[in-house]
Amino acid sequence: MLYEISEKVIRLQNEGKAIIKFNVGDPDQATSPDIINAAVKAMRDGKTKYGSSAGDAKLRQWLAEMYAVRPDNVVITPGSKWAIFAMVSLLLKNGGNIIVPSPHWSSYALIAHHVGAELRLLKRDLESEWETPPETLRRLIDAKTRLIILNNPDNPTSKVMDSRNLEAIVELANENQIPILSDETYADISFVKVRSILDWEGPHLLVHSFSKTFAMTGWRIGFAILDRELAEQMVKLNQISISNVPLFTQEAAVKALELKDAISREMREVYRRRAALACRILSKTPLQFTQPDAPFYLFPKGDVDSEAFALKLIDKGVAVVPGTAFGEYRSHFRISLTMPEESIQTGLEIIAEECR
Amino acid sequence: MLYEISEKVIRLQNEGKAIIKFNVGDPDQATSPDIINAAVKAMRDGKTKYGSSAGDAKLRQWLAEMYAVRPDNVVITPGSKWAIFAMVSLLLKNGGNIIVPSPHWSSYALIAHHVGAELRLLKRDLESEWETPPETLRRLIDAKTRLIILNNPDNPTSKVMDSRNLEAIVELANENQIPILSDETYADISFVKVRSILDWEGPHLLVHSFSKTFAMTGWRIGFAILDRELAEQMVKLNQISISNVPLFTQEAAVKALELKDAISREMREVYRRRAALACRILSKTPLQFTQPDAPFYLFPKGDVDSEAFALKLIDKGVAVVPGTAFGEYRSHFRISLTMPEESIQTGLEIIAEECR
Repeated sequence: MLYEISEKVIRLQNEGKAIIKFNVGDPDQATSPDIINAAVKAMRDGKTKYGSSAGDAKLRQWLAEMYAVRPDNVVITPGSKWAIFAMVSLLLKNGGNIIVPSPHWSSYALIAHHVGAELRLLKRDLESEWETPPETLRRLIDAKTRLIILNNPDNPTSKVMDSRNLEAIVELANENQIPILSDETYADISFVKVRSILDWEGPHLLVHSFSKTFAMTGWRIGFAILDRELAEQMVKLNQISISNVPLFTQEAAVKALELKDAISREMREVYRRRAALACRILSKTPLQFTQPDAPFYLFPKGDVDSEAFALKLIDKGVAVVPGTAFGEYRSHFRISLTMPEESIQTGLEIIAEECR
Repeated sequence: MLYEISEKVIRLQNEGKAIIKFNVGDPDQATSPDIINAAVKAMRDGKTKYGSSAGDAKLRQWLAEMYAVRPDNVVITPGSKWAIFAMVSLLLKNGGNIIVPSPHWSSYALIAHHVGAELRLLKRDLESEWETPPETLRRLIDAKTRLIILNNPDNPTSKVMDSRNLEAIVELANENQIPILSDETYADISFVKVRSILDWEGPHLLVHSFSKTFAMTGWRIGFAILDRELAEQMVKLNQISISNVPLFTQEAAVKALELKDAISREMREVYRRRAALACRILSKTPLQFTQPDAPFYLFPKGDVDSEAFALKLIDKGVAVVPGTAFGEYRSHFRISLTMPEESIQTGLEIIAEECR
C-alpha cells in the first residue's frame, strides 16, 4: 500500500503535478553550512581512508561524555536504523520474541521478520493518550522475550512517554531481565522533556541519530550506547558488513554536536509552530488526535478507511501515510510536518475539506 | 593474531616509532580533488536527504551501460563488503554451504560464519601458480552448495584467473546451477586483462567497489550486479538496514566514473612500478612468490612461521599479515604495496635481512 502511494506520487509528480508530501519524515531544512564545511575540510585533509568499525575516537569520546558512559560503550553506525538492525540481529540470533508498542515504525517489524524473531505488538490507543499499559506488557512477556523496543518520542504518535509510565515499563523489564532498546531519535528536538532509558539501571540500549536533530537524514550517521560486550559484538558485525562510517561524516557529526544547542533549539521552535498551526486547523475538523509532544508527526483518527482515503487525497494533491503502515490503525493516518507552514496550511485545508 | 599485530603497531606508533605498514590494503593516494569537489557541490546543492535504497538513478544508469545490463540489475551499496554480506545473507538464509578458493579474504569466512553457512575451502597453492583446480571444486560441490565466491583479481595472491581456468569453473557451476559471486574489486587496475563473470551466461553475481580504483576506501561505496529478483530482495534488505548510500557520495562516484580511464591508468602504472620493485628485491631472497597480475599484494612463502615472523618484524619497524589470516598458509605472509617506493624498498630490505 505504501508502495502504491509512493508510486502514485512519483507518477503524478512526473506529470508535473505538485503534491504536498505529508508522507515523508525527512526535514525540509538544509544541513547547516557549518556542518557541511566540517565534512569538506575533512575530505580535503585526506580523511577518506578506512576508519575504525567502532567509530572515530573523538566522536565516541564526545558522545560518551554527553551520556556519562565510557567510549567503549559507544558505537558509531550508518544511521540509527543500522544500530537497530545490528542489535536485533545479535540479540535474537537464537530466536525468541520482541515486544513493540503499536502503532510502530514499520522498520521494527520488518527487521524482526528478517531475523526470524516473533513480533508481539502491544496495542495502544488514542483514547488513553497512547499510554503503554504495563499490565498488557506483563501479559506479553514470556521466557522467550529477548527485547522490548520503545520509540521515545514516538513515531507516528509524537508522544513522549510520561515518566511514571516509563518507570513502570522499565521496572517490569528489569524484573524479567529483558533489555529495552530505546530509540530516542526525536529526543533532542522534543517539545517536552524526555527521560532517557539511560536514566535507569539495567541492561538497556539506546539508539540515536543525527538525522532529525540536524537535518542529516541522507548522511547516514547515528550511534548506539550499550554494554561493552554487546558493543564488541556490534563492532565485529560492522567489520564484516558496513566497515565504517566515513571519517569525514564523523567530523561533520562532531561539528553538529558543537552546534547542538543552537540547532536543536531552532528545529524545536520551527516544529512547535508548525504543530500548533496543524492542531489549530485539525481541531476544526471531526478528526480526533492527541497534542504532539515532539516533531514531526500527527496521527489523527477519522471516520475513514485510511487506505482509500490516502489514495483519494493524492488526487487532490496531498500525500499521507495510512495508519495500516503502523499496525492495526485503519482509521488513522500519519501527517509529517516537514514542510513550510504555508504548505501545511494548504494541505491540511484540503484534508479538512475531505473529512467534512 | 591480526588483532595482536595491529594492537602492537598502534602501541609502537603511539610510542613515536615509525612502522612501515605492509599490513593494510588501503591505497596511500588521495581521492582525486575532482571527485571530492563533486561531493562538495552535491552537499551544498542539498543532496543531503534520504535517497533510494537501490541507489540513485543516474549512477545505476551509468553502471548499467558499462556492464550492458539494465538499471534494475544494479544496486548501489555502502562498499562491496555490504553487497557480499547482503547476498550471502539472502542466498544462505535457509542454510547450505559456500565454496571459496583459499587463500581467501577473511571477510568471506566471517560472513559465512555469521549467517550460519558452512564454508568449504578450495585449497590452492603457490606451486601451481594459485590455479583453482576444477576437479577439486567438483569434489566440494554437493546438493547443499548455494554459492561459489571468486575473488578475481585475488586478495592475497594478486593473481588473475586465466581464462581457461575460469571457463572450467563457470561450466562446473552452471552444470550444477550454482551462482558464482565474483568479487572484482581489483579488476579495473589489474596489470593484465580480467574476464568478468558477466561474460558468461548463468545466475552469476558481480560485486565491485570504488575503493581501490579511485582511492575511496573510506567513502564506503560499491555496487552489485545481479538478477532482478535478487536485486529486489537486496533493496528490501537495504531499506531495513543501511537505508541508502549518501547522494553526495553517489555524485562523487559518478564523477569518478567520468574520470575512470585516466585515474585507473595512473593507479595501474604506480602499482606496476611498485610491484616490479618489490619483485626485484624479493627475488634476491630465499622467499618464493608468484608475479602479481594486479595490485596491491604479494604473498611470499618462506621457511618461517609467519605469525612469529610477523611479530618479530614489527620490532624491526615493519608490519605484515601472517598467511594464517587467509587460511592454512602458515609459511606465507601478505605484503601490501600501498606506500611510496622508498618505503617499499626500506621495508622489503628489512624483510630480506630477516629471511637470510
